[in-house]
Amino acid sequence: MSEWQFIDWIRSKTGSLGKPVDPVVLGPGDDAGIVRLTPETIAAVDMLMDGVHFDLKKIPATLAGRKALAVNLSDLAAMGARPVCALVSLALPTKGGRALGEQIMEGILELAKEFEVTILGGDTNSWAGRTVISVTVLGEPLPDRAPLTRSGARPGDWVLVTGSLGGSLGQGKNLGRGRHLTFTPRVREAAQLNMGYEITSMIDLSDGLATDAAHIARESGLTIFLNPDRIPVSPDVPKGSPELSPEASKQQRLKQAMTDGEDFELMFTSPPDIARKILTSSILSGVPVTHIGECRVGDPVLKWQDGTPIKADGYQHQLD
Amino acid sequence: MSEWQFIDWIRSKTGSLGKPVDPVVLGPGDDAGIVRLTPETIAAVDMLMDGVHFDLKKIPATLAGRKALAVNLSDLAAMGARPVCALVSLALPTKGGRALGEQIMEGILELAKEFEVTILGGDTNSWAGRTVISVTVLGEPLPDRAPLTRSGARPGDWVLVTGSLGGSLGQGKNLGRGRHLTFTPRVREAAQLNMGYEITSMIDLSDGLATDAAHIARESGLTIFLNPDRIPVSPDVPKGSPELSPEASKQQRLKQAMTDGEDFELMFTSPPDIARKILTSSILSGVPVTHIGECRVGDPVLKWQDGTPIKADGYQHQLD
Repeated sequence: MSEWQFIDWIRSKTGSLGKPVDPVVLGPGDDAGIVRLTPETIAAVDMLMDGVHFDLKKIPATLAGRKALAVNLSDLAAMGARPVCALVSLALPTKGGRALGEQIMEGILELAKEFEVTILGGDTNSWAGRTVISVTVLGEPLPDRAPLTRSGARPGDWVLVTGSLGGSLGQGKNLGRGRHLTFTPRVREAAQLNMGYEITSMIDLSDGLATDAAHIARESGLTIFLNPDRIPVSPDVPKGSPELSPEASKQQRLKQAMTDGEDFELMFTSPPDIARKILTSSILSGVPVTHIGECRVGDPVLKWQDGTPIKADGYQHQLD
Repeated sequence: MSEWQFIDWIRSKTGSLGKPVDPVVLGPGDDAGIVRLTPETIAAVDMLMDGVHFDLKKIPATLAGRKALAVNLSDLAAMGARPVCALVSLALPTKGGRALGEQIMEGILELAKEFEVTILGGDTNSWAGRTVISVTVLGEPLPDRAPLTRSGARPGDWVLVTGSLGGSLGQGKNLGRGRHLTFTPRVREAAQLNMGYEITSMIDLSDGLATDAAHIARESGLTIFLNPDRIPVSPDVPKGSPELSPEASKQQRLKQAMTDGEDFELMFTSPPDIARKILTSSILSGVPVTHIGECRVGDPVLKWQDGTPIKADGYQHQLD
C-alpha cells in the first residue's frame, strides 16, 4: 500500500465532510491545498508523539488522532476563533502503519466533522521509530470580533476558568487513559464568550493553571492573584490518602489541579461587571465557569491571594 | 531550559525577519499566530524524520532544518504561489535537544530570510526517539494568477522540466550529503513562469520523475509521453561502471534520473507555442529548461515515446 493509495483513502473520507459553503478550493492530493479564509488567518500547530502524549500500547489509535486535532482546536478556541481546516503530517511505523494511519485519521475525521473542520492536506511517512502526529489548524476570527490573545488582561479584571482541573491523565491502572484523550475542545464556549462579552485575554490550559496563568501575567504585564479555595478541582483528582490530614489532602489535590496539565479548559479575564454577567448567565450551557482570581498592577507573576508566590511547575517539555 | 525559554530564543531570531509590510499580526508565543493573507490561502505540510530524510549522524542539523523548509517551499513553488509564513513543530531528543533545536531553527531561519518567509508559530517537544521536523507553509496566489495544479494539462501540451535529475542523495561515501540538503526551491522560477506564461499544470519532483509525472497524467486524465533521450541527467549521477556497455550505462543513468527522487525541480506543461517561447527566453536566468515530452489523449499513465509503459517506481514511503 503506497502513500498515494493512502491519500486516496483520505480523499474518500474527506469528501463526506459537507459544509454549507465549503471553503476548501483544493483538498488533499496536490502539492498544496487551497482554502478561502478571511484576510486574517489564525494558525496553530501541535505535535504529539507516541509514548509522550499518548501510548498506543494502551489506547486505540483513533483516540491519539482525536487528541492531535483536539489540542489544536483548543488553541484556536483560546484565540476566540473559528477553526476552518487542518493539515495532518504523520510518521508511522513501517509495519502495520497503514492500519494505524487509518485509525488515526478516523479519530481526526470524527472530531473534524463535529466542528466542521475540513482536512486540507497532509503528509504521510513511515520509519522505524514510534508514531508522530503533527496537526496544523487554520481558522478565522469570528464576525466583527478580534482574536483574543494572552496580552490583553488589565488591572482589576477578574480571572475565570471553565470546567474543573486536574487528573486529566487518569490515575492508577487507568493512567494515560483519562480526559486528555476525550475532552471536548472549548471552541463553542470560547465563541459564545467572545461574541457575547468583553473578554480581555484568554488561554487554554494545556500545561496546568500554574504555568498557563503565568503566561497571561507575563504577556499582560500584571500580577494575577488566585484564591486557592476557588480553584475548581476535578473529580478525576483522587481523594487524599487516608494517612493524610484533611488539610494536607486538600493541598495535595489543589497542587494536582494547578499542575497536572492537559485540562484544555479556558482561562480568561474580564472586567468585574462583565465577569459577573458571565457567571450568572447560562450561555455556556452545561459548562461551569468559576471566578478564581483577579489581575492587579505588579510584577508579571502569579501569586496566591495572601501574596505567596505560585511556582509554575506545571508540565513542560524540558530541553537541556 | 524550558520550552518557553526556547520560544523566547525563537522570538529573538524571528524579530529580525523584516519585510516591507510584515503580514504577521501575531507571531510565536500565543496560543496561535495571526497572519494577513489574500482570501485564497495556499497551505502545504511536510514531515522529515532523522534516519529517513536526513541523518544527523552525518550532517549538521542546520541542513536538516533548511531541508524541512525547502521541501515545503518547493510545494508552494509547484502551485505557482508566493510563500508567506511557516509553522514549525519539532520532536527533539531529551539529551542535547536545546542545541539541536537551535541549529534546526537556524537552518530554517536562514532559508526563510532568503525567501521572505516569517515564522508564524510552532511547537517544541522532547522525547526518547529521533528528531522529527514538521513544517507547514502558508502562501498566497501571485497577483491575478490562479494557483497551478496537477490537473490542468491538456492534450497537445508539451512537458518541460527545470534543471537536471538524479543523484540528489549523493553517492558512495557522500551518500546522504547530496543536493537534497542544499537545493534552492524553485519559488522564483515558478513565479516567473506563472506570471509570464500560460502554464497548464505543474508539480515539483520530490519522488522522481517516473512517479511525479504520473501524478500529472492521472490528475489531468491523459497520457504523458516522454523522450528518453531528452531527460536531463544530473552530473551527480555517476558514470556507469566500466564493465557495463555504453548503452547499459546510459540506461542505468536514465533510471536514476527517473527514480532517485528528491530533485525538487519543477515539471510543468504548456501549449507548444508557449513552451517554445519559454525554451528560447532567458527569464529563468541560470536554470535550464528542457522539453522532455508531450501530453496526448489516452489512459492516465506515463509512457516512453515508443509506447513502452514507464513504471512509476520512484521513492515512495511504503505502508503495509
